[in-house]
Amino acid sequence: MTAPGSTLLAEIVDAVGAEQVVTDPVSTEALSRDHAEWAPCGVPLAVVRARSTADVQAVVAACHRHRVPVVSRGAGTGLSGGANAVEGGVVLSLEPMRAIREINPLEQLAVVEPGVVNDDLRAAVAGHGLWYPPDPASSPWSTIGGNVATNAGGLCCVKYGVTRDYVLALEVVTGTGAVVRLGRRTAKGVAGFDLVGLMVGSEGTLGIVTEVTVRLRPLPPAAITVAGHFASVVDAGAAVRAVGAAGITPAALELVDRHCLEAVDAWKNMGLSVDAEAVLLARVDEPGVTGEQVADRIVDCFTGAGATWADRSTDPGEAEALFEARRLAYPALERLGPVLTEDVCVPKDHVPEMLARIEKIAEHHDVRIANIAHAGDGNLHPLLITPPGDDAARVRAQAAFEDILDAAIGLGGTVTGEHGVGLLKREGLEREASPEVLGLHRAIKRALDPALILNPGKVVAIEGVG
Amino acid sequence: MTAPGSTLLAEIVDAVGAEQVVTDPVSTEALSRDHAEWAPCGVPLAVVRARSTADVQAVVAACHRHRVPVVSRGAGTGLSGGANAVEGGVVLSLEPMRAIREINPLEQLAVVEPGVVNDDLRAAVAGHGLWYPPDPASSPWSTIGGNVATNAGGLCCVKYGVTRDYVLALEVVTGTGAVVRLGRRTAKGVAGFDLVGLMVGSEGTLGIVTEVTVRLRPLPPAAITVAGHFASVVDAGAAVRAVGAAGITPAALELVDRHCLEAVDAWKNMGLSVDAEAVLLARVDEPGVTGEQVADRIVDCFTGAGATWADRSTDPGEAEALFEARRLAYPALERLGPVLTEDVCVPKDHVPEMLARIEKIAEHHDVRIANIAHAGDGNLHPLLITPPGDDAARVRAQAAFEDILDAAIGLGGTVTGEHGVGLLKREGLEREASPEVLGLHRAIKRALDPALILNPGKVVAIEGVG
Repeated sequence: MTAPGSTLLAEIVDAVGAEQVVTDPVSTEALSRDHAEWAPCGVPLAVVRARSTADVQAVVAACHRHRVPVVSRGAGTGLSGGANAVEGGVVLSLEPMRAIREINPLEQLAVVEPGVVNDDLRAAVAGHGLWYPPDPASSPWSTIGGNVATNAGGLCCVKYGVTRDYVLALEVVTGTGAVVRLGRRTAKGVAGFDLVGLMVGSEGTLGIVTEVTVRLRPLPPAAITVAGHFASVVDAGAAVRAVGAAGITPAALELVDRHCLEAVDAWKNMGLSVDAEAVLLARVDEPGVTGEQVADRIVDCFTGAGATWADRSTDPGEAEALFEARRLAYPALERLGPVLTEDVCVPKDHVPEMLARIEKIAEHHDVRIANIAHAGDGNLHPLLITPPGDDAARVRAQAAFEDILDAAIGLGGTVTGEHGVGLLKREGLEREASPEVLGLHRAIKRALDPALILNPGKVVAIEGVG
Repeated sequence: MTAPGSTLLAEIVDAVGAEQVVTDPVSTEALSRDHAEWAPCGVPLAVVRARSTADVQAVVAACHRHRVPVVSRGAGTGLSGGANAVEGGVVLSLEPMRAIREINPLEQLAVVEPGVVNDDLRAAVAGHGLWYPPDPASSPWSTIGGNVATNAGGLCCVKYGVTRDYVLALEVVTGTGAVVRLGRRTAKGVAGFDLVGLMVGSEGTLGIVTEVTVRLRPLPPAAITVAGHFASVVDAGAAVRAVGAAGITPAALELVDRHCLEAVDAWKNMGLSVDAEAVLLARVDEPGVTGEQVADRIVDCFTGAGATWADRSTDPGEAEALFEARRLAYPALERLGPVLTEDVCVPKDHVPEMLARIEKIAEHHDVRIANIAHAGDGNLHPLLITPPGDDAARVRAQAAFEDILDAAIGLGGTVTGEHGVGLLKREGLEREASPEVLGLHRAIKRALDPALILNPGKVVAIEGVG
């Protein structure tokens, strides 16, 4: 008797080699989910490690013949369940594809395989005086392919934009196993629809990216850091709005609350804890006197909004430690118990109100909520922390999570600013988008993946999957 | 006996009012084509002037019921035939929808109807210290809706990007007559596929845009202009490459050749004609000393590449006159005879070679070719000019046009940098994109416009149209 999937497995092994195919449940389990603590996930038939476009094409073609789902993944640092395995499907890991194929200073672009780690790309191009701006907090671990799949953001987005703004061209394996090249190497181009933009952020549901051509910029000048302490997160939110109202676009404008600083200190003993409920960190990278003037105006905005202390940092080491603390906040909080991560984004005008609503929701549901935020673009990450093993707290956190989504939608915002829909925000998307817009999503999904095998069930539910 | 289309016409008149519907051929003829001199166009059943989203919806729904094509248009300044009427179809003019609904300095956005003229939006937001960067040379006449449909570029793209980079949200009437809202007002958002980006540049084939939310920036500081004279366009191309190799991103870097300057002078008597084959104009808008340093480095790049003269302009009036001449080049050349406009875009490295090939192609086919170019991003506009009534010259120009497309593709470029595919570049797109990629286009077209009534036959040929 032939076990289910054994023919498919034999075809995959034949195409990519047995050493690239993992089937024992202990080994596949670790590669079956991303970092979204609370999203469901299935048990895969196998995890396949792709080393080339040909490997990806062979696996997708085989899955297409057998109508078996294929879920692509990078480093698994996603926060929405987008890379979680589908029961009985194939997980396709692109981590082995980590070559940087070209760095071109004249055209200011680089061509990379999807498994290249964000920070590795950054380091490689810095040697040429160039910069790849998108900087999710996961940049030491997350891959460019994963960043493309989720249209990752980060600290610098407020001034420099998101991943989509830096993707010029893609090589993609489609749902029928064809290899296509989308986009171009030129600075401009309007020959046909924007299929590159459509692929970016589609979370592996419309195609699997096997090569990325990214746009680069010159390295920015040395930055000035401005820090402000506030007696409440709402005051800090008012300062964020004041910076926007002053027409200032800082190179970063981050909010970190007391919960986060204490958790980082408890872990790393960095001596950061301050006598403030919230800290704002701004980065200014205009050159010379202009930069100093902008920094001073930000200090004024902070002070005018009620900061208990605000100043330009004169110590680069101290400034870097503050940004490092912001990057460490998420793993530091995870040490305290399961974390449910929010990712709402609201218009700047409503940042203070949204932060106030989050406080009320925390109180109402008796849930501990810490706040980190890319505050300058209204992208808030309330982190709902529950004590390990406390199921009742978990239920309350889930209710608070839903209330936060509704509050963001009510303020003209979105349920996800940069983490993606995956599984965690699928219902949120259904509340945010009209049935007609969801219908357009399904029509495009069916057009590009007619057999519905690419990461099915993520982003939008679709009939015929399962 | 009922004339063909009379039921449809009656339904449209019933919905929008007889005064908005034009059917006499003399009046419709002027609204049946864009500015692409040589593209074919049909005789429409009627031209309908839409005053509201409800008007657009009613017209599309009626056309959907009757399976009659509907071609939307703005000011008709397009250069690819994208707005040309389809035989027996309805032309839907969005020019009457010209309200600016909101200008929001805090969120740095504006909400406009599609018929708002680009320069009118610019002037309105300037009063708030804000700037809408995309600046096609047609900005005094072209509409934001048309700019969105073609993903229009312009002079500032080299530093500030194209229309797509400034569109946050759209209201769109789909091919089945549904009204949908796509995108968001927040700075970031990844809830669902990038349908806004997909609509931008789709030339009215996937939906009809009835409202646009654009991102704005603060007005840039006063700019410094650098001008350079060159003994050949190829030398000027080498200077463009040198600027790129120096890692400089000017706020504009335009090439105008002697043919253009002479034509503008013959028309406007601006006293521009110089003893040079090509002029490069760069604009630098970094503030203060930094800007002066960048300007000096550009002078050095020009000189190093063999400029016969190069300097910073000390006279703002003179600098503005040079940029005005660049904007007037196209209409000035049109006075000399029918112009076939090219719009190729090549990597910066190949700008000199592409300009050399254009010269050879002009010689080989005995065609007069003038050059204007957004040279800084490799976007060249060779203009093929034929004497009025000279059919043989027209045939030669057509052959030269095709050779230029092949040369651009051969150098890793694209057949259209900013004008769009429309009808003129449809075959070019077929040469540039693989059959699989064209297949993805057709699949998306069928998914979003299943009755194939939206501007059918533009961008890609599709079975079942006609």
